[in-house]
Amino acid sequence: MRHTVEEIAKALGAELFGDGSLTITGASEPASAGPEDLALAMNPDYAAGLSDGKARAAILWDGADWQALGLEAALVVPRPRYAMSGLTALLDPGPEIAPGIHPTAHVDPSATVGGGAAIGAFVYVGPRARIGANARIANHASIAEDAVLGDDALIHAGVRIGARVRIGDRFICQPGAVIGADGFSFVTPEKSRVEDARASLGKETEAINASWTRIHSLGGVEIGDDVEVGANSCIDQGTIRATRIGNRTKLDNLVHIGHNVEVGEDTLLCGQVGIAGSTRVGNRVVMAGQVGVNDNIFVGDDVVAGGSSKIFTNVPAGRVVLGYPAMKMDQFLEASRNWRRLPRLMDDVKALKNAVPKPGKDD
Amino acid sequence: MRHTVEEIAKALGAELFGDGSLTITGASEPASAGPEDLALAMNPDYAAGLSDGKARAAILWDGADWQALGLEAALVVPRPRYAMSGLTALLDPGPEIAPGIHPTAHVDPSATVGGGAAIGAFVYVGPRARIGANARIANHASIAEDAVLGDDALIHAGVRIGARVRIGDRFICQPGAVIGADGFSFVTPEKSRVEDARASLGKETEAINASWTRIHSLGGVEIGDDVEVGANSCIDQGTIRATRIGNRTKLDNLVHIGHNVEVGEDTLLCGQVGIAGSTRVGNRVVMAGQVGVNDNIFVGDDVVAGGSSKIFTNVPAGRVVLGYPAMKMDQFLEASRNWRRLPRLMDDVKALKNAVPKPGKDD
Amino acid sequence: MRHTVEEIAKALGAELFGDGSLTITGASEPASAGPEDLALAMNPDYAAGLSDGKARAAILWDGADWQALGLEAALVVPRPRYAMSGLTALLDPGPEIAPGIHPTAHVDPSATVGGGAAIGAFVYVGPRARIGANARIANHASIAEDAVLGDDALIHAGVRIGARVRIGDRFICQPGAVIGADGFSFVTPEKSRVEDARASLGKETEAINASWTRIHSLGGVEIGDDVEVGANSCIDQGTIRATRIGNRTKLDNLVHIGHNVEVGEDTLLCGQVGIAGSTRVGNRVVMAGQVGVNDNIFVGDDVVAGGSSKIFTNVPAGRVVLGYPAMKMDQFLEASRNWRRLPRLMDDVKALKNAVPKPGKDD
Repeated sequence: MRHTVEEIAKALGAELFGDGSLTITGASEPASAGPEDLALAMNPDYAAGLSDGKARAAILWDGADWQALGLEAALVVPRPRYAMSGLTALLDPGPEIAPGIHPTAHVDPSATVGGGAAIGAFVYVGPRARIGANARIANHASIAEDAVLGDDALIHAGVRIGARVRIGDRFICQPGAVIGADGFSFVTPEKSRVEDARASLGKETEAINASWTRIHSLGGVEIGDDVEVGANSCIDQGTIRATRIGNRTKLDNLVHIGHNVEVGEDTLLCGQVGIAGSTRVGNRVVMAGQVGVNDNIFVGDDVVAGGSSKIFTNVPAGRVVLGYPAMKMDQFLEASRNWRRLPRLMDDVKALKNAVPKPGKDD
Repeated sequence: MRHTVEEIAKALGAELFGDGSLTITGASEPASAGPEDLALAMNPDYAAGLSDGKARAAILWDGADWQALGLEAALVVPRPRYAMSGLTALLDPGPEIAPGIHPTAHVDPSATVGGGAAIGAFVYVGPRARIGANARIANHASIAEDAVLGDDALIHAGVRIGARVRIGDRFICQPGAVIGADGFSFVTPEKSRVEDARASLGKETEAINASWTRIHSLGGVEIGDDVEVGANSCIDQGTIRATRIGNRTKLDNLVHIGHNVEVGEDTLLCGQVGIAGSTRVGNRVVMAGQVGVNDNIFVGDDVVAGGSSKIFTNVPAGRVVLGYPAMKMDQFLEASRNWRRLPRLMDDVKALKNAVPKPGKDD
Repeated sequence: MRHTVEEIAKALGAELFGDGSLTITGASEPASAGPEDLALAMNPDYAAGLSDGKARAAILWDGADWQALGLEAALVVPRPRYAMSGLTALLDPGPEIAPGIHPTAHVDPSATVGGGAAIGAFVYVGPRARIGANARIANHASIAEDAVLGDDALIHAGVRIGARVRIGDRFICQPGAVIGADGFSFVTPEKSRVEDARASLGKETEAINASWTRIHSLGGVEIGDDVEVGANSCIDQGTIRATRIGNRTKLDNLVHIGHNVEVGEDTLLCGQVGIAGSTRVGNRVVMAGQVGVNDNIFVGDDVVAGGSSKIFTNVPAGRVVLGYPAMKMDQFLEASRNWRRLPRLMDDVKALKNAVPKPGKDD
């Protein structure tokens, strides 16, 4: 991808200094930049790096003296982190998939594929699947029977999209993700040990788990527009109704979404998050890596869950949580500090017990 | 799948009211049911939904007045959750894999495939692999050399079954699961820092970790009958003897089973559970999502481990555990409540220290 | 693989007793050994097993009387665990991939493949990819455009190696691993709720998360020599610079490495470890299963993190940690013991409060 500095300035809404006609083919940290790289030096710590590298153009911190830094062109952007989105979009070549259907792909005659599609080697598209316009489907992906995929999809290598899954427009799916596997749902003829343990909050029980019988999954998966799913993540299909992922929600790698789960819009689920069956997660929620959420509960809008929070009960909208079990983050941090002080606290209490005269046994 | 209400009643052992000849093609929540759906209204909360939807037949709660609800047929079942297993089995069309061997599949001439098999597109079956009768193997699955797969297997897309893995009858494997990867086993020429840290329970040590040398895996994997493995789960092969999964045990998605692990029968391992090398897990155990189990320990029969329990030491049979580290669930819940009260407790102790006269320093 | 006991003795640096010409084809636990298996009886507990099995040769504990045990040959090794690496390497047949390029594979004409390669069924090698000498690439693996793979690689079934990923020599990759997926990086036009929650350590905030915009990944992945990656693990590419894995570092199954992460040399990351974006992990680090590491932090050389440690802040070199949040292991163990004693402590404090006269309210 080749752009002039002026084109980049325009795309980012950046202020341009110097020679806008310079050509850029990539972005780089300042110290390792080549002559056609745009160096990213958004704060003064990077000044030294600029002279180590060979960049002729850079994005600089506000107020930097680009000429003194030896540059021929410079950009200044209002919110550097946000500028990264525009810049990287410009420079990303995307996966290389030849237009049309690769000769080794297998597309069922009853499937429909929209115009402008690029379907890679060894792709499987099953009976009656419908794929929208401009789809890019990389090698080894599978789209099972009756699946529906909107326009402008980007499906990376080895993705598995199951039967009857329905996905909106502009879907991006990283390699190895599995959408629409069967839910994990088993039932015993009699009440099981698990049902008992839950009802009694862990009191010992005589019930045993045996003769697990499978509840099949008929409900499929429904995914909105502008959703992304990370590498090797799994979204199971619902039992009777669909498992649902709302518009603009993004899942990182190795995320597990159980059957019947409903995730709202604009939500981010980071690496290795797991959400158990039938739980509802609101809009604009952010769960950091390794967060776990119990089944059949509700996590409200705008909740932020810190790393590895283990959420056992409903979380009201807007709460910021952390911990195992998850609680308000500030509460966790305070209790956690105190927890490390426990040994000293135990000593204090012991000393107090010695200092305070014991009441007589016959009081 | 098309069934009469009468057929469904018979299959579920349900009591039938009204017109048993009605035809059903699917199941649905009451409010979204179409005229050929069986509405699932197993408790009175669903009564309103029934009038919003178009169902003519429903499974109802015991004592419901089906005629007043505007239905033409109704079923009542003794244990509604259990009835779901029979009902969904009836209505599940299963994956669509054409009978026979797909022309794009590669089956090694030395492999044997039982009668009635359906082997999908791009499937790989290696040298001397043996596949039982009626196997359904979806697109892109691999069955490596010398693997043995029993009768009636259902292998979903992209599953990897490694060399010399042996699996019983009626195996169900969700997409992307990997059975028989190499175990994670490395050793240093001298005692390593990890061995030292373990032996000393975390005391600082001078030993360093270097020159990790690979211990190869020769032991394979042995899986019993009626086992299920979830999407993208991994079961590593053993070092010298096999890693073993007992009859009727079910694994959810993204589960990790280390080398030499032995899991008993009728056990459920939920999403993202991880079991480290050489650990034994008993029969009828249930581990909720994200449970972690240390290596080289033992988890007894009938243990139930709540969400994200981190099990470091042996757990006796029948125990219900929770927490990090895992302890008896009621003990965890009590300590956990108190943990949140720590700030107040610290204040109390501080006040007590002020209130109690200090003994002289030279006491 | 067929070896004489003498060859094995030489390879392991073992002391040989008895008939070195005996032929060995496998290794086994003593009780289940066949006549051509080398029984592994490295401590006296296995003595009984030897008479149950049929082994004629064994590796024995130091000082064992091999003749009294009924053996024809015996080996004694200085460090039995270390001997396992040499022994299993000798006996591992490796995956069966026919030399040359399988007729069903698709290798782009612009790709280069070194001498001695074995490329399996349905393998995809993209434009301009470069694969070193003696590569063994199992069925269904993908090597995307411009990827570079060193000599002697062993790539198992269904591995996805993304565009521009660069990997050193002797790489071993288990099935389903994904190297070079896009990083999980989104930004909002205005400061987001997450940025606020972090800055305020969890105080409630009015900011909301919306309009997540994608930051594309341009940085690729760079992997050193002698690295191993486990089944279904994921290593995301960096944003601007590469995500890096150092020489001789080993990853277990289902590990997640976020974008821009740098992992040093000789480090072990066990099953289900997750490392969030831009974090640096030193050399000779060992992280046990399910450890989680925050983004943008630093874990020093020689750190050992116990099972499920959740590391939120920088860890200095050499520390042994455990817990959520992670702390020094001995500190965690002590606090953890005390935590279980909390109920008793609460009772003690309550009793003390009753025993100590309250100061007057108007003090």
